[in-house]
Amino acid sequence: MDLLPSASNWGIEDMYAIVKKKRAPGAEVTEVATPKIRRSEVLVKVKTASICGTDVHIWDWNEWAQERIKNIPLIFGHEFCGEVVEAGSDVTSVEVGDFVSAETHIVDGTCYQCQTDRMHVCRNIQILGVDRDGVFAEYVVLPERNAWKNDPKLDPAVASIQEPLGNAVQTALPKNHVEDIAGKNVAVLGCGPIGLMAIAVVKKLGAAKVFATAGGLNKVRMELAKKMGADMVLSAKDAGRNMTQTILDETYSNGVDVALEMSGSPAALNQAFEILTPGGRVSLLGLFDMPVKLDFNNAMIFKAAAVYGISGRRMFQTWHQVKGLLSDKEFRDKIASVITHKFPMKSVEEGIELISSKKAAKVVLEPRW
Amino acid sequence: MDLLPSASNWGIEDMYAIVKKKRAPGAEVTEVATPKIRRSEVLVKVKTASICGTDVHIWDWNEWAQERIKNIPLIFGHEFCGEVVEAGSDVTSVEVGDFVSAETHIVDGTCYQCQTDRMHVCRNIQILGVDRDGVFAEYVVLPERNAWKNDPKLDPAVASIQEPLGNAVQTALPKNHVEDIAGKNVAVLGCGPIGLMAIAVVKKLGAAKVFATAGGLNKVRMELAKKMGADMVLSAKDAGRNMTQTILDETYSNGVDVALEMSGSPAALNQAFEILTPGGRVSLLGLFDMPVKLDFNNAMIFKAAAVYGISGRRMFQTWHQVKGLLSDKEFRDKIASVITHKFPMKSVEEGIELISSKKAAKVVLEPRW
Amino acid sequence: MDLLPSASNWGIEDMYAIVKKKRAPGAEVTEVATPKIRRSEVLVKVKTASICGTDVHIWDWNEWAQERIKNIPLIFGHEFCGEVVEAGSDVTSVEVGDFVSAETHIVDGTCYQCQTDRMHVCRNIQILGVDRDGVFAEYVVLPERNAWKNDPKLDPAVASIQEPLGNAVQTALPKNHVEDIAGKNVAVLGCGPIGLMAIAVVKKLGAAKVFATAGGLNKVRMELAKKMGADMVLSAKDAGRNMTQTILDETYSNGVDVALEMSGSPAALNQAFEILTPGGRVSLLGLFDMPVKLDFNNAMIFKAAAVYGISGRRMFQTWHQVKGLLSDKEFRDKIASVITHKFPMKSVEEGIELISSKKAAKVVLEPRW
Amino acid sequence: MDLLPSASNWGIEDMYAIVKKKRAPGAEVTEVATPKIRRSEVLVKVKTASICGTDVHIWDWNEWAQERIKNIPLIFGHEFCGEVVEAGSDVTSVEVGDFVSAETHIVDGTCYQCQTDRMHVCRNIQILGVDRDGVFAEYVVLPERNAWKNDPKLDPAVASIQEPLGNAVQTALPKNHVEDIAGKNVAVLGCGPIGLMAIAVVKKLGAAKVFATAGGLNKVRMELAKKMGADMVLSAKDAGRNMTQTILDETYSNGVDVALEMSGSPAALNQAFEILTPGGRVSLLGLFDMPVKLDFNNAMIFKAAAVYGISGRRMFQTWHQVKGLLSDKEFRDKIASVITHKFPMKSVEEGIELISSKKAAKVVLEPRW
Repeated sequence: MDLLPSASNWGIEDMYAIVKKKRAPGAEVTEVATPKIRRSEVLVKVKTASICGTDVHIWDWNEWAQERIKNIPLIFGHEFCGEVVEAGSDVTSVEVGDFVSAETHIVDGTCYQCQTDRMHVCRNIQILGVDRDGVFAEYVVLPERNAWKNDPKLDPAVASIQEPLGNAVQTALPKNHVEDIAGKNVAVLGCGPIGLMAIAVVKKLGAAKVFATAGGLNKVRMELAKKMGADMVLSAKDAGRNMTQTILDETYSNGVDVALEMSGSPAALNQAFEILTPGGRVSLLGLFDMPVKLDFNNAMIFKAAAVYGISGRRMFQTWHQVKGLLSDKEFRDKIASVITHKFPMKSVEEGIELISSKKAAKVVLEPRW
Repeated sequence: MDLLPSASNWGIEDMYAIVKKKRAPGAEVTEVATPKIRRSEVLVKVKTASICGTDVHIWDWNEWAQERIKNIPLIFGHEFCGEVVEAGSDVTSVEVGDFVSAETHIVDGTCYQCQTDRMHVCRNIQILGVDRDGVFAEYVVLPERNAWKNDPKLDPAVASIQEPLGNAVQTALPKNHVEDIAGKNVAVLGCGPIGLMAIAVVKKLGAAKVFATAGGLNKVRMELAKKMGADMVLSAKDAGRNMTQTILDETYSNGVDVALEMSGSPAALNQAFEILTPGGRVSLLGLFDMPVKLDFNNAMIFKAAAVYGISGRRMFQTWHQVKGLLSDKEFRDKIASVITHKFPMKSVEEGIELISSKKAAKVVLEPRW
Repeated sequence: MDLLPSASNWGIEDMYAIVKKKRAPGAEVTEVATPKIRRSEVLVKVKTASICGTDVHIWDWNEWAQERIKNIPLIFGHEFCGEVVEAGSDVTSVEVGDFVSAETHIVDGTCYQCQTDRMHVCRNIQILGVDRDGVFAEYVVLPERNAWKNDPKLDPAVASIQEPLGNAVQTALPKNHVEDIAGKNVAVLGCGPIGLMAIAVVKKLGAAKVFATAGGLNKVRMELAKKMGADMVLSAKDAGRNMTQTILDETYSNGVDVALEMSGSPAALNQAFEILTPGGRVSLLGLFDMPVKLDFNNAMIFKAAAVYGISGRRMFQTWHQVKGLLSDKEFRDKIASVITHKFPMKSVEEGIELISSKKAAKVVLEPRW
Repeated sequence: MDLLPSASNWGIEDMYAIVKKKRAPGAEVTEVATPKIRRSEVLVKVKTASICGTDVHIWDWNEWAQERIKNIPLIFGHEFCGEVVEAGSDVTSVEVGDFVSAETHIVDGTCYQCQTDRMHVCRNIQILGVDRDGVFAEYVVLPERNAWKNDPKLDPAVASIQEPLGNAVQTALPKNHVEDIAGKNVAVLGCGPIGLMAIAVVKKLGAAKVFATAGGLNKVRMELAKKMGADMVLSAKDAGRNMTQTILDETYSNGVDVALEMSGSPAALNQAFEILTPGGRVSLLGLFDMPVKLDFNNAMIFKAAAVYGISGRRMFQTWHQVKGLLSDKEFRDKIASVITHKFPMKSVEEGIELISSKKAAKVVLEPRW
């Protein structure tokens, strides 16, 4: 599989895109050449895109971005949907006219991980909008295998956020045969967009009581947490140490069967284990700013805890699950309500600011330039 | 553990019970002595009972019953709830006044199966109302370990049918499998009471499309199947061979990810595999009248199918799951609606007739004598 | 993925091959053109091949073959190893000079099964030597993804039989997380080549007692079963119904934890369930000549048995496992000893006769023409 | 279940025991009354005992012991085997004359954990020799359920160390995981007695390459690691940071599929994740002296690692597995060779000193007073 970014293929400058031109904060809305596809790729006209925390890091040019981004200039953005307008000669499973979203992890298909049912941690992974040109543009090139065909009737805004929804599903169901949600008590620590979606997911999978916790007192997100189906929304600001006691009280002192850490906060990490029932399960999705100190004896060992690191989404198990879950209107509406703002793509900066200040949950961009 | 039936303990005749007195069809409503408990047992005053297919077999004195029932006279019935009125001296986890239901499988706790997390198939199992006196009476004796404490506010009729609901959960989740239901397509073959509850269960666990199939054109049950959440209810009478085609058409030709056989019909068994996606899963709960011929090559082997025999309920994983699932009012109401009739206990025969003729789904008995 | 057979690419007739030219028993050793590769394929010079039961069916032109084989003329054979002598322009993970074997299932990579970690039951599967030209030839074409790189030092005869060894591993470990072999009792029903290898595999995975059963009194195979590590080898001829009793007696009446059905005999299928401990597991690999009658109630349902149909090998989990297991000399030697005969390739008929008469276990062919 | 220690039952002082009499270092060899059993208990005459690290902590009266030990005077010690000499009136599964070892975790059988197949983390657990009188004595009282019947022919020294061997099995197979060991590469970090046994266990379960790592250059233990079957034994002293590189080099840069942390060293914890293949598994058995700082992003999250805390042994799955594994003479001999010293029980101090100084691996005590 040929994984080079398509930037070198640019010819005449005839489409709009949001391009990171310098290794510095910000990006430019500018005209570039429409990219050319290779035999195994498709060209997709972007219908809707959405902003991920990663895009904010790239915009801000934080430490992570400085180290991770190799190719500048870069069109960033990776959550989206659009219409296939051209297909390479080797492409067989997607057609011009198909309404697609993108699995954003481009894998080699031949490494040990790809050969053993975990290609989401492929050893030579490339990420759309990070390692090659992304979706904040009029057109984007996708490898055939990364084009996920949507139901033509799916709301484009929802279609665009299926990729992070897949992360929420992966956090809920990290391996096969996780029955610890059905009829059980679950805590979701962190009410960012994926945390919010995870609340809706575990409720949809039959969780009994769902506790959502937030670090601060962000009204927008706490209200959304309720809307997603959380039985109790607890703020660290309010509840402090009593948060643990509250959750134990509400679970016959058993604690939760599953804790999903979606915040990247060291305090939440510690708390995830405090509220966990012995023999319970923790999923870790939130990234931490630095190494975290943990009392492994009490947190994991004496508790016989099972802990799963979450990276990406199983390909394409989670996409099929997302499709199935979204076939339920009530669930689809919940997920749609995580989208708090829509902007024309050229106003991307506005969206990024709202996310940075946590005034928005999910921001969707539409291809108006 | 001392597993002898308590019948020998009867003293003065001072309670009503439905007693199978002869190895022949029928049973008598009669007075017997209130049973005495042993140190590790509790005495429970019956509040509500319900009729299982097994009770119909015992009443009818069919081949299975003739072979299986050892101790006559026998008070039969095993689904119920009631109040603990006396507790043996060794009992620590249940108290007088507790509102309990019964896990009906009494296990030895020491055999290979009990020691390896599958006591529901204990080698020396005894079943309430089959091997020892059951619940169609004013009082019943339970081993401490078999008394499941209910939420005091739970509707007694629902509390009584938690045991078969646990079977539905076990059929849906035979081992640690929730992933194959979440967002996936499921077929439930057979719309008897447990089949109906299984429809509600898999919907509650996030199934995408649920197909319910019935052998005949029983209106009551087909309407209940819809109410439980089935997306499509298909009758073999109507659809015949096209049933398979219909299900394939509705699933992009993939077939269902999971098929739950709840009917005991050889035709349904064969069909379960026809509609199954390769690599999918089948659970078998329905009992067959005789050996069944199956094309194992195409049904199981080429399809790499996983097949699980369902016997009882995992103890007590399913009870905790049932409790958690019933904490949702919408689900609780669905389950309650499977109860189509209520009778005084002395009118048990009427209930049995309604079940035999499939005019009822679940029949509840109340202790009026 | 382009899945057409390469036969149409034949040019000048310059290599030897065993070609099925007519839809009738037998085949011809003849000269044909060396096949040409496409961009994503490699050309491999055959070093060693081996005969599978499937090859015998194709030779005999039995009912299965008549229905299954579409393309005649066909070079058959699929178990092999050889050296890559040419690689297509899109090939990146294999190089000229690599010593490879073949995963014989060629998959589309895009169907539901391929996208959900079970490509071994791909909906558009093509099999080497069945649906496209195989390995009983001087050269064979493989898709890049189907070329498995061997340790250059691996004995070619062993390298050739890794594909059926992978079947044995798949039968032992059909899904993830099957711990029921470690320290547990296992029965292998059927002592054909894959059955024999399965005995060695389960012993290698820590099985306690292993019972091997054979239908007849085939001395070669029964002695090989012992050599593979079977603690007890039982012949149906000798033991009859007492076989079940013997196994129960040897397992404290618990029965075996795992039964691997490798024979395709209805009697063995029934017996697999009779000797199974409640809650145990059965894998079905052997193909049956016709539908089989089974008492599902007692066999599967009351026993809460888990049953797995085995088709192919998980790709490429089993190949990695085979590689790891073969790194142990003792195991490698055991596997090598399943090879009872070696012939020049032109003498394929002799090998096929020995297998048909069960005088051989595994027969290896060397490229002498 | 009545869980009070039996100490209060002591009558006349007529047996020898090693008694912790004061909340201070050391213990006394002294005479005490033979304990009396209750209805559900058995009295066992100690045949062989062995010293666990926990016993060293109790002897040393370290911080953990000061906080954990409630009942003084206390007979400590928990690993052992012996003969049943008296059985309570409610006991049915064990008889006088049985040769037994002890599952040392005494559970209530009624809490959420006990009811959901994880009684090894029972909420009201009591540990033999910690919470109630243990086995460094002539006689010990066991609840019936905790008496594990051994094969009468099993070497008493090996019978005594089955309990820590069960820990090794639990670390290897924390849930139903055998697949990630079969044919896969495994690292065992830490060569104490349980680490050594874990090496033998994973080899027995079909591991390909096994890497054993030690903090220091302890010759006794490093040679035992080889004897257990380690393919490579690496000392941090020798190899330092290159240990990681060495292991990557030996695994085609994939790293190990499974890392078992048995040392309680923060450096080893970090290393376990460095050498882990993405999507791999870590088990944590070793206890840490204090909270440990870990880069969770790189260690667990980006790697999609699965991490299992290990506490005790699954009851009684691991005992059955241990029994099965020990049925193989080669494995039994390996396990026996972990026993480096035998002393009369009265010389317990000598054994404790040898363990503290790491001059011994496992020390066995015989009832000579």
